Amino acid sequence: MDEFQFIDSITPFYYRQSSLLKGIGDDTAVIRPPTGFDLVTAVDTMVEDVHFSLNTMDPYHVGYRALAANISDLAAMGSSPAYYMVSLVIPNDWTPKQLEGIYKGMNELAQVYNMDLIGGDTVSGKQLVLSITVYGFVPYDKSRYRSHAKENDIVFVTGTLGDSAYGLYLLQNGENIGVEQNYFVQRHRMPTPRVKFAQKLQTFKRVCLNDISDGIANEANEIAAASNIDLYLEYEDIPIKRQLKKLPNSTQREFILSGGEDFELIGTACKEDWENIKQIALNTDTEITAIGYTATSQGKSSVFLSKDNKTSILNKTGYTHLLK
Amino acid sequence: MDEFQFIDSITPFYYRQSSLLKGIGDDTAVIRPPTGFDLVTAVDTMVEDVHFSLNTMDPYHVGYRALAANISDLAAMGSSPAYYMVSLVIPNDWTPKQLEGIYKGMNELAQVYNMDLIGGDTVSGKQLVLSITVYGFVPYDKSRYRSHAKENDIVFVTGTLGDSAYGLYLLQNGENIGVEQNYFVQRHRMPTPRVKFAQKLQTFKRVCLNDISDGIANEANEIAAASNIDLYLEYEDIPIKRQLKKLPNSTQREFILSGGEDFELIGTACKEDWENIKQIALNTDTEITAIGYTATSQGKSSVFLSKDNKTSILNKTGYTHLLK
Repeated sequence: MDEFQFIDSITPFYYRQSSLLKGIGDDTAVIRPPTGFDLVTAVDTMVEDVHFSLNTMDPYHVGYRALAANISDLAAMGSSPAYYMVSLVIPNDWTPKQLEGIYKGMNELAQVYNMDLIGGDTVSGKQLVLSITVYGFVPYDKSRYRSHAKENDIVFVTGTLGDSAYGLYLLQNGENIGVEQNYFVQRHRMPTPRVKFAQKLQTFKRVCLNDISDGIANEANEIAAASNIDLYLEYEDIPIKRQLKKLPNSTQREFILSGGEDFELIGTACKEDWENIKQIALNTDTEITAIGYTATSQGKSSVFLSKDNKTSILNKTGYTHLLK
Repeated sequence: MDEFQFIDSITPFYYRQSSLLKGIGDDTAVIRPPTGFDLVTAVDTMVEDVHFSLNTMDPYHVGYRALAANISDLAAMGSSPAYYMVSLVIPNDWTPKQLEGIYKGMNELAQVYNMDLIGGDTVSGKQLVLSITVYGFVPYDKSRYRSHAKENDIVFVTGTLGDSAYGLYLLQNGENIGVEQNYFVQRHRMPTPRVKFAQKLQTFKRVCLNDISDGIANEANEIAAASNIDLYLEYEDIPIKRQLKKLPNSTQREFILSGGEDFELIGTACKEDWENIKQIALNTDTEITAIGYTATSQGKSSVFLSKDNKTSILNKTGYTHLLK
């Protein structure tokens, strides 16, 4: 199979999005965004043996998870996913069947969100590199920036944290916890970006959103810095699955604060909107939990974490130091 | 220098394009295309020791050429370049200074076209991979598709062909042809996408354009297939620099027909527009040459190449076979 045959094999028979004027097969794709919508776009790159391993994932999961990570960025901007492009560096030892697996994984998730594959590049190299560019639409003035948090907001998080890190841990260590094994493994291999929930928030004038790709410690600090406020989080309020409580405290803590790759959303909203936001979460089958609040910054924007009535400063990497 | 410091070092101090609402520093970039314009986008990936080598290029050229190749796709769609995102896989043996070189090369060319760097991803890996996504704008109904050629069009090409291949040949073989050496080497390292010329063609209702990245044999066949017509090209009319004529016939031919990477444009237009197109070429300092014509397809869309009064069929790879 040469490059042209491969492109033929992955070229869609039809496109789902009506805003697409030209897909695969010309110098560029051509998109006409719907009136009243902005176009949002991001790129994310995964490298074999750096970001994933075939020891813990099938090619199908590699594709699925890479696109999920990208869609999560679109969700965190409050937008509706529409398109993706795929740049793939292919080493000799990957078979056509494996490559097909990557595209199957991406396509399965793309179908859920009516996304179209509209272009890309396939080249050869020493190591598999999968780089995806995604495109979405968001109504004017409804982009959810990290800088949109204000003082006296509620800080919330969707889903449960640490699941993906625990799933990877189980796979890497060959451990099996029985009937619940599959849940955690799937959370690692096939995360669910919070698109529906984020879209439904479009009725609100202001919401701040960030997706949890590197760990809540990092993401909370990004919001604090961008919005120039302080965040106060309660450790015991961070939602986790009960299975994680069986782990040693330090492992638990690492998975929850810095595990990342759960692709849940952390956000802030004013208190008046909180009941309605909870209702939207309910309507979209999204678990949602208030984990803290925001306050005027004391000079340097910080994230404070309380546990057992002691308050520490939480830095980006998940490291804390106690306040005197 | 960690990833965050590196991102800081490449983050622009200001953005040039007024349609940008959010650049680097959030989950996605946010773009509001000007009214009456479509957004065009493409991705192109270059791998060290596959698409380029530090034996023949500095990191600066790697960046410059990669972005030029992408901009050339925007030109071939008749659009105005606006934005780019960079995904970079960095191996251990690349120094921060070399990486800076790549970004300098890209930035130099971006300045020419007022393009903004609006996002990206930097990760580690075994081999340097530079993947660029570009974004441009084109007025409604002025996208220049490969399918836009019609019978009785003039086929034209900008610039001269084979220069880049000859430049690479000189570098790879350590040859030096004296005063003209630099011209060919620069054509390989720092090609000029034909943006200005393509933009000025926006006054015409119909023009077909394709950029010459893989060689005119390939690109002419793409137009024939997409437009379902035949192309008749005259080999002696294909514009080349006189220095190429000193090369053995087979080398010359290979450079001209399949050399690629000149990032010139091949196009077709109706005869009535030809004089005006030549004037636009003149006004934009673009060499332009008629090299043939189009005709109704005889069943299978083909490219015919005439040389010394003999006509062959030219296939995608540059191979020809004589007509009986």
